[in-house]
Amino acid sequence: MKITHCQPYKKANFIKFTFLVFFYLIMFLPSLVIGQPPRGPYVISPRVHPDKTVTFSYLAPQAKEVRLSGQFQRDPVAMTMGDQDIWSVTVGPINPDIYPYSFIVDGVNVMDPANVAFFPNEYFKASLVDVPGDEPLIHALQDVPHGTVTYTNYISEVMEDKVMPLVVYTPPGYEESPEKEYPVLYLISGTTDTEETWFKVGKANLILDNLIAQGKAEPMIIAMPYGNNGIPISGPASPDVVPMYQAFSDQLVKDIIPYTEKSFRVLSDREHRAVAGFSRGGGQTLWSGLSNPDKFAHICSFSAYLTREAFEKNFRSFYSNPEETNAKMKLFWLSVGNEDFLYQQAIDFMDLLKEKNIDTKTLVTGGGHTWMNCKLFLSEAAPLLFK
Amino acid sequence: MKITHCQPYKKANFIKFTFLVFFYLIMFLPSLVIGQPPRGPYVISPRVHPDKTVTFSYLAPQAKEVRLSGQFQRDPVAMTMGDQDIWSVTVGPINPDIYPYSFIVDGVNVMDPANVAFFPNEYFKASLVDVPGDEPLIHALQDVPHGTVTYTNYISEVMEDKVMPLVVYTPPGYEESPEKEYPVLYLISGTTDTEETWFKVGKANLILDNLIAQGKAEPMIIAMPYGNNGIPISGPASPDVVPMYQAFSDQLVKDIIPYTEKSFRVLSDREHRAVAGFSRGGGQTLWSGLSNPDKFAHICSFSAYLTREAFEKNFRSFYSNPEETNAKMKLFWLSVGNEDFLYQQAIDFMDLLKEKNIDTKTLVTGGGHTWMNCKLFLSEAAPLLFK
Repeated sequence: MKITHCQPYKKANFIKFTFLVFFYLIMFLPSLVIGQPPRGPYVISPRVHPDKTVTFSYLAPQAKEVRLSGQFQRDPVAMTMGDQDIWSVTVGPINPDIYPYSFIVDGVNVMDPANVAFFPNEYFKASLVDVPGDEPLIHALQDVPHGTVTYTNYISEVMEDKVMPLVVYTPPGYEESPEKEYPVLYLISGTTDTEETWFKVGKANLILDNLIAQGKAEPMIIAMPYGNNGIPISGPASPDVVPMYQAFSDQLVKDIIPYTEKSFRVLSDREHRAVAGFSRGGGQTLWSGLSNPDKFAHICSFSAYLTREAFEKNFRSFYSNPEETNAKMKLFWLSVGNEDFLYQQAIDFMDLLKEKNIDTKTLVTGGGHTWMNCKLFLSEAAPLLFK
Repeated sequence: MKITHCQPYKKANFIKFTFLVFFYLIMFLPSLVIGQPPRGPYVISPRVHPDKTVTFSYLAPQAKEVRLSGQFQRDPVAMTMGDQDIWSVTVGPINPDIYPYSFIVDGVNVMDPANVAFFPNEYFKASLVDVPGDEPLIHALQDVPHGTVTYTNYISEVMEDKVMPLVVYTPPGYEESPEKEYPVLYLISGTTDTEETWFKVGKANLILDNLIAQGKAEPMIIAMPYGNNGIPISGPASPDVVPMYQAFSDQLVKDIIPYTEKSFRVLSDREHRAVAGFSRGGGQTLWSGLSNPDKFAHICSFSAYLTREAFEKNFRSFYSNPEETNAKMKLFWLSVGNEDFLYQQAIDFMDLLKEKNIDTKTLVTGGGHTWMNCKLFLSEAAPLLFK
């Protein structure tokens, strides 16, 4: 009886053990495959606590110094080594938002290996920490109808038939209403960002899901192109910056808009077309929007500007008859943070437009040239679009 | 005359200079924002040369030792510091494929900051280098009609109403043929991978675009879930591995399939439904597929297996009447590389199925437990689906 009882028990244990060896191997396999040492203990990082302090952890048996760099603090802070070679530090409380951060390990910037949330960028690598609000923030994943984000691509004739990526948000209900057509926002990220940055960092999809659910924004399509058109900026003495702007404007008008209108159910009149962007994308927005007032009735520039000289040289027709321009433009939005390194220039441009009697909506916030501000700018500008 | 001539020239230069200062600032801004030191020189890495050697470069003024780790080589190789604090090394020629790699900077694994192509994973961070073939490889972006990849999410009742991510490939023509319904492949990645890995590393979308263009594969939808269902695997003595498999199978059948069929135009009979996966996802594939033969007529397991004990204990009905099973199953595919650490177990499982008189298609390749093999397995298995 005892044997009969023990036999299946042992067998079950054997099966479990065999499975567990299998899983244990697989657990550490990716590290082995990639040429890293086995990971050792299971690190969970970051951990956001109820009081909005956050603990960051990093496994580094050989490091001499590990620091935490993040946009929720001014300077990097030291981490200390605890059990099992894990360095950690608890910081905050942190004001609810999504922030880029990285570890500085013996002087080397490293993404958090335990964190999947990352900042797509061509020239630095950072992870993202999401500190939720007591009430859900406008970019939080909430229990509302969700749109989808589609990765697609188009052939750019302007860029010699190169296949270019495009990330497109379609709002909730898009699939279910196959007859309905939507207004479209072309949304451009900054220098060294990619076509993914407005999605992965800017949370454009979740912001619109929430604004639409709250009845604050019109359901719209958002097309997010890759702003780097490969025209090199050689340095301060290079004459190639204006051609880059112009070439992007051409790409937008000749390639991106036609592709989007062919592939998605888009209202194709200027009153239902907007362009917006951050930093370099804000400059591309201004150049494209002001060059093509017949195409765009909505222009939103986040943390960017045009010089007086560039504006007066290239866009005389835009301001020479302000009444006509103001009647045609449905929204001309400009925003910047008061700690942005472009703050004064952006303010000067706002003043210049006032001086030219061009109607604008402006927003000056706290904070700097950051994606925390990007989310805020989109959240505030999107409700004004297509109305 | 001279003045008249020079004036606009100077003015144009001033405008250009102003723009360039603006761009120069923006160029270095992301580094400043993220708390890294300014990047200094513009690093291009990797550079794939016509002879298929590849130069990798990394800016690290303070590093004492930088090495290149990559799946195209057995051991890390030393990099040397050249001009402007840039470490580099040229390796190869490399056999055409897409490989994960990283830099080991004073013992710390680092993604390539200059490279946008990355390996989505929960526990390590790697970049990707694409060495093209003389003729385009099956995963290459080619001039053929392209499908799209959609990021969406579903509410998982099995996971207590958690919002779960799902990445979905729809084939070329999906948008243009609003009446057409497609077969669907549920495709699961490995331990520590994410729902993005089959897209970003496995290139499932491009492989299908090319196979469809060549007339080799049926146009199909591919739904790529997040395989980590949060049930912890505590270690080799833990009894929780089988519940994790079973819970994932439940999630697939009760949440993922219904969501996919509601949201996409999917043929919903078992003959038009397949499940496939790699590593842990291969195990989840076997468990889900064998537990639900009424749901799946196609099962493809890449680099995974079930033990004889688990198979005989849990899936007796699958092999007790092999003629019936063989008549019902349209495809039961098993593949593994002969350097895979699971090679022998996978071979044993192939033998076990033969012994039970279950029809299978098997493929044993060179190489290990890698995503290079994943791409190959999908390329070879997909043409057999839904036929």
